Amino acid sequence: MTPFADRLAETVRRTGNPLCVGLDPRWESLPAGLRTRFGAESLDTVAAATEAFCLRVLDLVAGRVGIVKPQSAFFEACGPPGLATLQSVVRRGKDLGLLVILDSKRGDIASTATAYANAAFSGITVSDHRFPVWDADAITVNPYLGRDAVEPFITAARQVGGGVFVLVRTSNPGAGMFQDLDCGGKKLYRHVAAAVADWNADGLGACGLGDVGAVVGATHPKELAELRSELPSVWFLVPGYGAQGALASEVAGAFRADGLGAIVNSSRGITFPFHPDNPNWEAVITAAIQRAVGDLQTLVRR
Amino acid sequence: MTPFADRLAETVRRTGNPLCVGLDPRWESLPAGLRTRFGAESLDTVAAATEAFCLRVLDLVAGRVGIVKPQSAFFEACGPPGLATLQSVVRRGKDLGLLVILDSKRGDIASTATAYANAAFSGITVSDHRFPVWDADAITVNPYLGRDAVEPFITAARQVGGGVFVLVRTSNPGAGMFQDLDCGGKKLYRHVAAAVADWNADGLGACGLGDVGAVVGATHPKELAELRSELPSVWFLVPGYGAQGALASEVAGAFRADGLGAIVNSSRGITFPFHPDNPNWEAVITAAIQRAVGDLQTLVRR
Repeated sequence: MTPFADRLAETVRRTGNPLCVGLDPRWESLPAGLRTRFGAESLDTVAAATEAFCLRVLDLVAGRVGIVKPQSAFFEACGPPGLATLQSVVRRGKDLGLLVILDSKRGDIASTATAYANAAFSGITVSDHRFPVWDADAITVNPYLGRDAVEPFITAARQVGGGVFVLVRTSNPGAGMFQDLDCGGKKLYRHVAAAVADWNADGLGACGLGDVGAVVGATHPKELAELRSELPSVWFLVPGYGAQGALASEVAGAFRADGLGAIVNSSRGITFPFHPDNPNWEAVITAAIQRAVGDLQTLVRR
Repeated sequence: MTPFADRLAETVRRTGNPLCVGLDPRWESLPAGLRTRFGAESLDTVAAATEAFCLRVLDLVAGRVGIVKPQSAFFEACGPPGLATLQSVVRRGKDLGLLVILDSKRGDIASTATAYANAAFSGITVSDHRFPVWDADAITVNPYLGRDAVEPFITAARQVGGGVFVLVRTSNPGAGMFQDLDCGGKKLYRHVAAAVADWNADGLGACGLGDVGAVVGATHPKELAELRSELPSVWFLVPGYGAQGALASEVAGAFRADGLGAIVNSSRGITFPFHPDNPNWEAVITAAIQRAVGDLQTLVRR
């Protein structure tokens, strides 16, 4: 079983870029043709339109980009049929050879965290049958509840060669409210970062990086570079590039000298760069992918 | 539209107790008869057994207790059919006149938080149709991402007379790892508590309490009492009673002098006090409810 860190390194090297395409599907942004074809009669038809769109995006992404990140909130917004769509999207992503990061930012006390973690990775076991649920390669996790809330995710991930990305410094404007509080001369997010380094040290792959990564927003380039030097073995998942405002130059500090160490997410900038009435939306998405790949590939070619 | 705080106060006064029954269904704990009847053939049959069990628990709860708290992780563990079961459980709970708190501990950047929040409360709107998703009375929210990650939940809740419970001091053994860090002479969870007090001040009901509550574990009675005096207008959702170890005397400090201000959750202690092979499991649950109600009712009778 290849460790998650090495699968990620191999993916970045093979595709030549660190782009992660975020899937945040919203009905109002879907191509008008798809909305008309499926209709807004029920959550089932909305989920079906969402599925058709996401599967097509995956086709356009595959071969150009190696990593996708479905955001569970936008699937949950369509209720149970939306979550069936999420399953279908993860499955197709993996069939296409993509690494799939489930962005669900879960976190709960240990026994509950184990239920979320099993759903994310190995599936649930009932009377000796094992049923896969999300079957993701990695998941995002919220650290607020502490060690025993995070570790079940790490344990479940390691059983299947998967990974965990812990929220350290998020990309939203209000992130600093708690994350920047000074705790004994060190901001809260640095304490979380230190815990991530600790967890990560137990799961290093051949590439010298590990399976417990950190979510670090691109919107604070200085902090990104400081964390890079503090956590040389930790994979960073960097949101905030593209539609959220950050440029390739601003995420450069997230990378190690060998061009590994970070993946850079773009969601709306890749999946919704078109007006819903534009029938050539697939071409617009392809162009957006090529532009982002061109923009980011210099960061991994050192 | 009655504010959430007043609905909660009315519920506690009507039932005469502050008990909240947590629904954390696990296949291996379900009554053997139910497991045999539905079978472990697929996630559909597992979800159906889970539904049958939870609906029966709701029947036993209703009339004795006023509040239930389904834990979304244990429904998500059965994938999309499990989440259809969650919908069915919330709907039946509300039909029975129970207040339903969705314990999903969500938290994400603003646009994503809005998607989760709409799913929890008003439902999603597509082409002028509104489709309910979870349709809960309240939801639990993780504060790590800061103000703009929490406020969409508050906004969505207020539109429907719902409530939000923000994680402040959780009941798990590792809670202190970050929550107890000293940030400028005040522990992190006290900073979160101050933010909760601030948010809550905008939504006070006639009872003098508001619609942004705090999750405060029963496992630290001293901190619970201190927070009570610091946050006189904030409803507390107190986990940790019963199977997690805390006694009624240890949660007493969470209550105001008028007997309001806290609801006390018990999950396994109420729903799984029986051996799976015991055919009289319904009587055992009823006895557990009566015991907890008897134990806790003195706290609200002042």
